[in-house]
Amino acid sequence: MQNQLIIPRRGFSSSEFEARVARAQRIMSAHGFDALLVSAPPNVRYFTGFDTQFWESPTRPWFVIVPLAGEPIAVIPEIGAPEMALTWMKDIRTWPAPVPEDDGLSLLKSTLDSLPKRFGRIGAEMGREMALRMPVSEFLRLREILGSPVEDGSPCLWEIRMVKTAAEIEHINYICQIASDAYEALPAQISIGESEREVARKLRIDIARRGADSTPFLPAISGPGGVQQIVCGPHDRILETGDILFIDTGSTFDGYFCDFDRNYAVGSVSDDAHRVHEALWLATEAGIKAAVPGAATDDVFRAMSKLIEDAGAIGNNVGRLGHGLGLQLTEPPSHRLGDSTVILENMVLTIEPGMEYAPGKMIVHEENIAITRDGARLLTKRAPRELPVIR
Amino acid sequence: MQNQLIIPRRGFSSSEFEARVARAQRIMSAHGFDALLVSAPPNVRYFTGFDTQFWESPTRPWFVIVPLAGEPIAVIPEIGAPEMALTWMKDIRTWPAPVPEDDGLSLLKSTLDSLPKRFGRIGAEMGREMALRMPVSEFLRLREILGSPVEDGSPCLWEIRMVKTAAEIEHINYICQIASDAYEALPAQISIGESEREVARKLRIDIARRGADSTPFLPAISGPGGVQQIVCGPHDRILETGDILFIDTGSTFDGYFCDFDRNYAVGSVSDDAHRVHEALWLATEAGIKAAVPGAATDDVFRAMSKLIEDAGAIGNNVGRLGHGLGLQLTEPPSHRLGDSTVILENMVLTIEPGMEYAPGKMIVHEENIAITRDGARLLTKRAPRELPVIR
Repeated sequence: MQNQLIIPRRGFSSSEFEARVARAQRIMSAHGFDALLVSAPPNVRYFTGFDTQFWESPTRPWFVIVPLAGEPIAVIPEIGAPEMALTWMKDIRTWPAPVPEDDGLSLLKSTLDSLPKRFGRIGAEMGREMALRMPVSEFLRLREILGSPVEDGSPCLWEIRMVKTAAEIEHINYICQIASDAYEALPAQISIGESEREVARKLRIDIARRGADSTPFLPAISGPGGVQQIVCGPHDRILETGDILFIDTGSTFDGYFCDFDRNYAVGSVSDDAHRVHEALWLATEAGIKAAVPGAATDDVFRAMSKLIEDAGAIGNNVGRLGHGLGLQLTEPPSHRLGDSTVILENMVLTIEPGMEYAPGKMIVHEENIAITRDGARLLTKRAPRELPVIR
Repeated sequence: MQNQLIIPRRGFSSSEFEARVARAQRIMSAHGFDALLVSAPPNVRYFTGFDTQFWESPTRPWFVIVPLAGEPIAVIPEIGAPEMALTWMKDIRTWPAPVPEDDGLSLLKSTLDSLPKRFGRIGAEMGREMALRMPVSEFLRLREILGSPVEDGSPCLWEIRMVKTAAEIEHINYICQIASDAYEALPAQISIGESEREVARKLRIDIARRGADSTPFLPAISGPGGVQQIVCGPHDRILETGDILFIDTGSTFDGYFCDFDRNYAVGSVSDDAHRVHEALWLATEAGIKAAVPGAATDDVFRAMSKLIEDAGAIGNNVGRLGHGLGLQLTEPPSHRLGDSTVILENMVLTIEPGMEYAPGKMIVHEENIAITRDGARLLTKRAPRELPVIR
């Protein structure tokens, strides 16, 4: 399916946030929570639209409470109140942080304790693929002083965030298209003899010029016939004939990530690299085809892993063959053996088959898809079936 | 004191890391910890030199254990082993993450339980200005299964990290000089009628061209005679005559941050802005002068706050008048009333007096200093005493 490149409107309407909260409240009800308490930037942003580069300072915690009924409540440092007032949020409560002896705890307690008690439980970001953005000792103190027990709300939060809205998907689609175009244009801009670092810099600048807001993740790694690892770098290594150049990127538009890679052959394509590239291209096809509403992530894993094993994989240190994405570079679910998460319409997923075919020689493919009623909609422009060659 | 712009060597020698660990072990002994367990990127980087853009993915936790004697141990996902092997670290233990049922916990347990027990306590990142980079529910499970109690190691970690090595200070000095030069060159590059966003983009590009690695923090905020807040933005607001343009930046070189701001008058300088700017310039002088080894952060606060109050401050929503910096944009200590942290040689601090002089009109100054035996060494180029004017 082909995509048109439409620049999405930045931010989301108040009615979008109202719909997000209404859906969250239905899911909270099923999980038995009177409120969700969130502190991490992607969760704060999901419910409020609020973003700030000030997340870089870990000194002051910020909180949003989503009650079972009614609008969310921001409980934040005074320093952030003028900006939070620009969002759709109406109930904004502040304290003069930083105050080591009471950095928001008593304000959180009075706010949470005043909410109606139906289930007598509050959900917090205690579980997987989330981290509390506050000192854990203060979280434990909050748990002690609150009138309701605080339990792991992350399965509930992930149930909320794993299924995207149409506007979220258009955000992700846009950044996927930008990065696809930049990947496609790259071979004409680089040549044998340049370093991984130079290549990464050129791609980073091109992605920015095409309209991305940021590129927090852009490993560029090269090696003879494949790479040793896929998450660290770039280094000063020089591209040489016979190398595979692997580049991945998590770039963002308005808070939303793409996360997919591309491979390039340097100078020429060896028979082995050609064969493995073809096997992974076909495994990607199989993964995309398997990602239909109602399938399990395990099904997607198996669809790919069979082809990878048949192609002679000796290993894969990534531990899974794709995952969710959105406001985070990686989100649940994971395409893993034994993971039984059911794939739903409007999830956004990566399809990421990879294999080590000889010691230290790894090739990994990746595409991003949105799940529609009829199956996967490709958000990235499909990687070329033949390895592009850098001369 | 004037600075020469010397580009520091990237990374640190093995002997630097050995010295960091030896000093850490002396401090751990005083705090009564058999080991420190760290998971957050700045702590992992401090002890190992390891960095990766892959921190952007919250799926897999990474750990470093600093034992009371001997070398640190990395307990990390398999996916990161090839890169960790490039650092000075020798003891690298891995598991095939992600494994939801046991993401490093049993490996952490066997590693920590095998260490000699002298104090019977392990320190973790539980306290202020730190956040665990792992799900809190898994941290609580780890606490239950370990042979020794896990307690708050953050005061110990901050005692270690608050005092910088000479090489760390030269890293911070370098990024401070880069940003100083970029701030100084800015008025010639921008003009009335441009937006905050355009101004921020130009400054960001200039900082990168001058040698910064990244600029995670660059709020640019304008307002008539002063600004409403200093941590969010830029927005699309257009610079108009009579505005104060406030810009702050946390840019990095090789992991280390600068954190200081500059103010510019747009078109002309009002009497009020001139008066407040002068008062804050003098308050900065007083703060710099007060920051001597043996003084308390409270002394630094008082030295500035008296001048700010005399100048007619009606408020300040920042909550403190400066703080530490290094591998984080903001670190302990805080210059706050009642904070009795003693200032030591080789701390790196911000001096950040600010005031709201009329409702919604705030001006904030900031410089970065390193503490020497003889007092403060300015790492930034001192802000001009007269407001630079943008035409």
